[in-house]
Amino acid sequence: MDSSDLAYDVFSRQCSSRSTLEHVTGRWGALTLGALHDGTFRFNELRRRVDGVSEKMLSQTLHALERDGLVLRDAQPTNPPRVDYQLTALGREIAERLLALIHFVEGRQGEVLKAQERYDAARGGL
Amino acid sequence: MDSSDLAYDVFSRQCSSRSTLEHVTGRWGALTLGALHDGTFRFNELRRRVDGVSEKMLSQTLHALERDGLVLRDAQPTNPPRVDYQLTALGREIAERLLALIHFVEGRQGEVLKAQERYDAARGGL
Repeated sequence: MDSSDLAYDVFSRQCSSRSTLEHVTGRWGALTLGALHDGTFRFNELRRRVDGVSEKMLSQTLHALERDGLVLRDAQPTNPPRVDYQLTALGREIAERLLALIHFVEGRQGEVLKAQERYDAARGGL
Repeated sequence: MDSSDLAYDVFSRQCSSRSTLEHVTGRWGALTLGALHDGTFRFNELRRRVDGVSEKMLSQTLHALERDGLVLRDAQPTNPPRVDYQLTALGREIAERLLALIHFVEGRQGEVLKAQERYDAARGGL
């Protein structure tokens, strides 16, 4: 991997871009970026939006995305401290592409369910 | 979740579209769909392309994508049997959106590495 951007290749297991992709598309990373596309959230607001995420997993997810420069963590020196999360410019660009994929998958889920029925029926309902 | 496509919402943990998204964006699902966008592959060809995947994980990944109607498995009745994998029309549409995201992430990986350096430096090199 040299300094040229063209050198990054997620198909190579050594390439650092593979872990960025995993942060972005991982179960909680994708939903967190998708949620933050709607605006600024506090931790607990985000946790409600990303239905099913544990406190620990959301915290780990946000740290990885912050370290990658995709999420901005803004801690206000109040008592109790108020911490807001929002996307950076790069995070926003990535979230847009991710949401294009998410909305497409949601829109075609009816077809996916029909395919699953056909697959299961062809295998004797297993 | 009723039969209207608009009713699917990956942010809801009960929604079946969330597992489709996970098959599509999971570590091996994303790379498998991305690889198959280039054409038809046999199992071992695909395994070489998706660097680092185990036989078991690739097999599980392909089964899930086949069941979702995104991958077509074509077994020729030869001896030894020849099995080809390719994208369905829906799989291709999803792979296109996924590759748009993958190529964008690869193209900005230089920025991500710089952000990681800044983050680590601000925390005393940890």
